[in-house]
Amino acid sequence: MANIRDVARLAGVSISSVSNVLNNKTGQMSEQTRLRIEQAMSKLNYQPERAPVPDKNVQKKIIGLLVPSIVNPSFSALAYSVDLSAREYRYRVLLGNSYRQDNEEAEFIEDMFSHGVRGIIVAASDIRKTHFVRAAEKGMMIVSYDNHYSDSMAADHRVFDSVSMDNIAAGRIAAQHLIECGCKYIVFATESALTMGRSHKIDGFLTVLRNYQLPIKHRVIEGKARSEYGDTEMFELGLTLVAEILALTPRPDGIVAINDALGIGLMVGLRKAGVSVPADISIVGIDNIFLSGLADPGLTSVMPPRAEMAQVMVERLISRINNGAIMPDEFLFPPTLVCRQSVKTKAS
Amino acid sequence: MANIRDVARLAGVSISSVSNVLNNKTGQMSEQTRLRIEQAMSKLNYQPERAPVPDKNVQKKIIGLLVPSIVNPSFSALAYSVDLSAREYRYRVLLGNSYRQDNEEAEFIEDMFSHGVRGIIVAASDIRKTHFVRAAEKGMMIVSYDNHYSDSMAADHRVFDSVSMDNIAAGRIAAQHLIECGCKYIVFATESALTMGRSHKIDGFLTVLRNYQLPIKHRVIEGKARSEYGDTEMFELGLTLVAEILALTPRPDGIVAINDALGIGLMVGLRKAGVSVPADISIVGIDNIFLSGLADPGLTSVMPPRAEMAQVMVERLISRINNGAIMPDEFLFPPTLVCRQSVKTKAS
Repeated sequence: MANIRDVARLAGVSISSVSNVLNNKTGQMSEQTRLRIEQAMSKLNYQPERAPVPDKNVQKKIIGLLVPSIVNPSFSALAYSVDLSAREYRYRVLLGNSYRQDNEEAEFIEDMFSHGVRGIIVAASDIRKTHFVRAAEKGMMIVSYDNHYSDSMAADHRVFDSVSMDNIAAGRIAAQHLIECGCKYIVFATESALTMGRSHKIDGFLTVLRNYQLPIKHRVIEGKARSEYGDTEMFELGLTLVAEILALTPRPDGIVAINDALGIGLMVGLRKAGVSVPADISIVGIDNIFLSGLADPGLTSVMPPRAEMAQVMVERLISRINNGAIMPDEFLFPPTLVCRQSVKTKAS
Repeated sequence: MANIRDVARLAGVSISSVSNVLNNKTGQMSEQTRLRIEQAMSKLNYQPERAPVPDKNVQKKIIGLLVPSIVNPSFSALAYSVDLSAREYRYRVLLGNSYRQDNEEAEFIEDMFSHGVRGIIVAASDIRKTHFVRAAEKGMMIVSYDNHYSDSMAADHRVFDSVSMDNIAAGRIAAQHLIECGCKYIVFATESALTMGRSHKIDGFLTVLRNYQLPIKHRVIEGKARSEYGDTEMFELGLTLVAEILALTPRPDGIVAINDALGIGLMVGLRKAGVSVPADISIVGIDNIFLSGLADPGLTSVMPPRAEMAQVMVERLISRINNGAIMPDEFLFPPTLVCRQSVKTKAS
């Protein structure tokens, strides 16, 4: 069967010219050229393919996904899992980067409404902001990922679904693992801007110290990242926290990092300072990005079940889009520990 | 101004119940509850916000972006830049992961048509496949990113825009840099499946060897990655190529890696083998992912101007959507070298 390229070749014209004839845009074209193209079409018995006309009555099978930055490995992993889950329902994912800017968030919502999108996943933003609340009131189905949700909201006054890792458990698992592996003096390294998820991780960490009757003062080492949404800021923060950690007396033998990027930065900084991981200091990260498997040593990390979380988020959105009577709910997922090489074993 | 939450609170019901009254879904509701809600609304003088009705006649300001996998840092960086450029035109980006599967690519195209999307960017796929050609013939504007384009196609028979880094220059710059820094015996490490972009990089590399009248035999060391689209396969391939490279006589003192992930894998493998980078072997990667700045030592890399390339891709799509007479064209972007610590300096 002849295609548009064959017609163009036979008529000795460009494909655009053939396309213009097909679309009746022949204003700029000589009569001679137009005729030559039409003759070529007829000679080749060319049947132009027509684009399927989008059916305007079909419900738009698109969900929105708003992340701080897709370059952050934690969010590209999320986008990947959300896309896989959405594909099962033949939904597509419209991506937005908020760069943690309010106006970008608000514009994203506005655009979702104007594109007829009825459900969005908002990752790691403060969901209580006015533009999110108003969007929910106007009928946008919203799932908040990674818990910047107010706990205090009574169940029947929720306007968003909330899906997150059990961050208290994450902090607890990380601290518990270090202590079980023989660490005596552990600290928690974090960005100083505390979201709810971060506070919960610290709570979990401190609970373990209390359980073991360890002192809990001065155990949280924090610093300010140059910016919060970038690709390398958390890593750089890890690098800069090394000096402060090494200056502590007694020197810590175990560190929980609020996220893996910060943990990898700590490892690089410690190596530069001549401190061996895990022989001198053990490290556990939280969120298990793929980089942690590539680091040397591999970073032990607390892993959220991202694929299952994505599945629930997508299912909730689609169910609620199809049935407005379903009430928003809260979903907490238990994390698990992925052991690599950054924690000394008891024998060593 | 009262909001839906205030109404729910006053009426002592859930927000969903208020929402049901607003949407006339009161079938399951007691008459008493409905009345209580209506009274609360009137007492609070509540004016429900209405979602803006999407205007079906407005052209959908969405472009599609199809990548092998968003988890691959090279493609998440691309998605970031494309989103930034698209936002300047108030366009949104609909993301697809092809997982390098033909059926996923074909379904993506199908979905783009049914959503009324008229322009897509296809990254790192063989654009000559039937589903892409037919989509272009049906009027989908397509930009092919990262050159898997047939060179042989005459300018006026192009159906796609093609935007890529000048891969020949990339291979040349990497090899030239190693030689200028004093390397005597350099090799090129690559995945064995050769796309056009990969072949071009090797061509550029070999050109430099010829210019310096160095032998060109057995200079391309290749291996098969377990899978091509995953997050860690290229890294793992780098790890496995180390043994082969160290077995060469004379042992290479410089390596060009086809991409940074493979280069980082090489660096980790060399360190495990007790070989120091850059003191014993220098390494240059190609594509400059952000990880390369985080690696230890930082990986010197050849950088495509991603932001500019994204800008051109988005502009081409929007221009061609608005004016079908604009002919597809080819755009080659010169890369630049980003020097970090993985190449020895001449003094050392």
